[in-house]
Amino acid sequence: MITILKGNICYSEAPDKLKIVEHGYLVYSENQVLGVYSEFPEDYLYFKITDYGDYLIIPGLCDLHTHAPQYSFRGLGTDLELLDWLGRYTYPEESKYAQLDYAVKAYNIFTNAIKHSATTRACIFATLHTPATVYLMEKLEQSGIVSMVGKVNMDRNCPAILRQADAKAAYNAARSWILDTKDRFDNTSPIITPRFIPTCSDELMRNLKQLQEEYALPVQSHLSENMDEIAWVKELCPQCETYSHAYQQFGLFGGSGVPTVMAHCVWCNDREIDLMTQNNVYVAHCPQSNFNLASGIAPVRKYLKHGINVGLGSDVAGGCHLSIFRAMSDAMQASNLYWRLIDNLYEPLSLEEAFYLGTRGGGSFFGNVGSFEKGYEFDAVVIDDSKLLTTNPLSIRERLSRVIYCSDDSAIRAKYVRGKQVELT
Amino acid sequence: MITILKGNICYSEAPDKLKIVEHGYLVYSENQVLGVYSEFPEDYLYFKITDYGDYLIIPGLCDLHTHAPQYSFRGLGTDLELLDWLGRYTYPEESKYAQLDYAVKAYNIFTNAIKHSATTRACIFATLHTPATVYLMEKLEQSGIVSMVGKVNMDRNCPAILRQADAKAAYNAARSWILDTKDRFDNTSPIITPRFIPTCSDELMRNLKQLQEEYALPVQSHLSENMDEIAWVKELCPQCETYSHAYQQFGLFGGSGVPTVMAHCVWCNDREIDLMTQNNVYVAHCPQSNFNLASGIAPVRKYLKHGINVGLGSDVAGGCHLSIFRAMSDAMQASNLYWRLIDNLYEPLSLEEAFYLGTRGGGSFFGNVGSFEKGYEFDAVVIDDSKLLTTNPLSIRERLSRVIYCSDDSAIRAKYVRGKQVELT
Repeated sequence: MITILKGNICYSEAPDKLKIVEHGYLVYSENQVLGVYSEFPEDYLYFKITDYGDYLIIPGLCDLHTHAPQYSFRGLGTDLELLDWLGRYTYPEESKYAQLDYAVKAYNIFTNAIKHSATTRACIFATLHTPATVYLMEKLEQSGIVSMVGKVNMDRNCPAILRQADAKAAYNAARSWILDTKDRFDNTSPIITPRFIPTCSDELMRNLKQLQEEYALPVQSHLSENMDEIAWVKELCPQCETYSHAYQQFGLFGGSGVPTVMAHCVWCNDREIDLMTQNNVYVAHCPQSNFNLASGIAPVRKYLKHGINVGLGSDVAGGCHLSIFRAMSDAMQASNLYWRLIDNLYEPLSLEEAFYLGTRGGGSFFGNVGSFEKGYEFDAVVIDDSKLLTTNPLSIRERLSRVIYCSDDSAIRAKYVRGKQVELT
Repeated sequence: MITILKGNICYSEAPDKLKIVEHGYLVYSENQVLGVYSEFPEDYLYFKITDYGDYLIIPGLCDLHTHAPQYSFRGLGTDLELLDWLGRYTYPEESKYAQLDYAVKAYNIFTNAIKHSATTRACIFATLHTPATVYLMEKLEQSGIVSMVGKVNMDRNCPAILRQADAKAAYNAARSWILDTKDRFDNTSPIITPRFIPTCSDELMRNLKQLQEEYALPVQSHLSENMDEIAWVKELCPQCETYSHAYQQFGLFGGSGVPTVMAHCVWCNDREIDLMTQNNVYVAHCPQSNFNLASGIAPVRKYLKHGINVGLGSDVAGGCHLSIFRAMSDAMQASNLYWRLIDNLYEPLSLEEAFYLGTRGGGSFFGNVGSFEKGYEFDAVVIDDSKLLTTNPLSIRERLSRVIYCSDDSAIRAKYVRGKQVELT
């Protein structure tokens, strides 16, 4: 089954290289891109064309880090730093997901929101509660997007109501959940998720490593978001050279066969950057959250110069918005301030680079995702920017810029994930 | 004519004091607030009540700094710093307003956008072109909001097409425009507007001072936005102790009888802060613009501690959004980063303070504006936040927080300015 979309096609060829094909033809077969053409490709003469007129067609956006259960308090409680924020707002909210009926209501709202966003791929934290997490996975599967979902693990330094009885109990619960879900969905899969070092005992980390290896699963967690958090990890793991090494000691910091994404990475030092580079650890850059919780600004330019893979994360509810367009503009702003206030050796991100991070940069965590080059999985979003009125004739690049800075979900006219169109009613 | 609105009423009593009256009664007569009551006020038994049910009713928002002609390129060209940005994007765009038909199209878009926003008061830069500026004022008058509009003055250091022939010609043009517009509108009035020191000769500044005095007009300009700009002002005015003194030498930096607002104030030193305090100069804090143009972060907490009046500005097109709700959340984020990265003696702004800045803080530039205390001019916005779904029962303060962080113009159900309801069709 070959299908052709027509429209103004934009995608990243490289971090600084935006390919634009005005009124071009995007051809895909099943779930794979076959090619992008500026003239009608005669080879495909007999296949159906969906003509999107003057709309923009871009790869689906990738959210490398968000918390589904926190969507219920987005826009609230950004007056504290990370550790107090967890205790005051986050843990009390997450404890409600012990009740499946609460989770049903809250996850219906979250999955409906992400379905109607431009996001087609996401790495998502749930809570530790199995029934709620499975329900979330079912709803995400129905939403049409592709996601990796983590049942969260915590067995220390958190309220009793969210603390698993011990590392063995946590292991058993995680294993049952993995067995239940790993082959059940087309687009939704489990990811190993220690919340972060402070809430996970050594034994729990060893157990999670065992599960990671046994089922060949990817890993997501948090790293070096906040200075008090980093000091706490230092106290908890005095033997570890850095926060990164606190994961590394258990084999949960990338390296061969362990696709790993770490959220934030605001304060990583050079030793950690080397380890991230060496182990191919992904950075989920979450600028809005870092602004809201006064965490700081991640040195994204430095990571890119080291060849580290960086994607963007909405990090709801540290961030208030699920939009990865918003994350792109936040990332540019963050990089401007980093250059201005912290180190002018690291130049600001360009529009091309921000777009890359939110598509291909994060997409590569999912495979060949986030671009329209031949062989890429076909995720696309069709954008009608006609409500962004202007008096000037705009290039496609300029229109994309305005979509990134100024549009909202109401501009999305169609969404495709792995070749299937999502019903956006 | 006494009118009563019923709803969840929120307004600032002081920078850190948000007054909330749940299901309260807001009474006004003509254009003035008479009072806010938690129980139905028996004195007003025979007057009409408009019941807004569970909606929020807040004072109209105040935008202390924006550029109407730049709305046409919002979301574009934020990849340069101020001076290059002016030359590359801003001046070429502003030169188009020499053509009235272009201005008509562009200003129709701008005024329609600000009309449908939560803003009820604004200080607005136009361009130097009289017909276009008069047209803008006519459209703003029709929009129902109250605004001060500046025909911009420039007679040096800008492209010939935007440079007035000489200071005398600029004076004559400004004077005619003032005479034409100062008594023509109910809600729209001229404000003396030197663009900034680099584009205004000494003679032009003296002429503008003369006009300011002759017609007792307020003043708006730019101050200390960008480090290259500041260095340039130092070169141009070697005799002046600071950038502020370059205005002060002409009597255009506040002081008795000269209501003055300066946009940005990112890099003001202590000597300037003293002068601003002494002269009651208003700061228009424009955080989004400061992020986009890599200008830096204004020390708002420091200004507040000095008793300086601070309001918020959208600064389109340095900023991409006209929303002063967005400016509130940006201001909180900026203050978080200032505290984290620059000086931890200056604590972040609270939600209450950000709300204050965008209502009463900026509003006081227009008189008794921006609150619902007795005697205040009656500007109000009615917000339906029901689309911001949640599973939690929320306090009115929490709902206001979500409106600030997450809502858009579609949440606005009604808008009143000086006691008159604006038709939002």
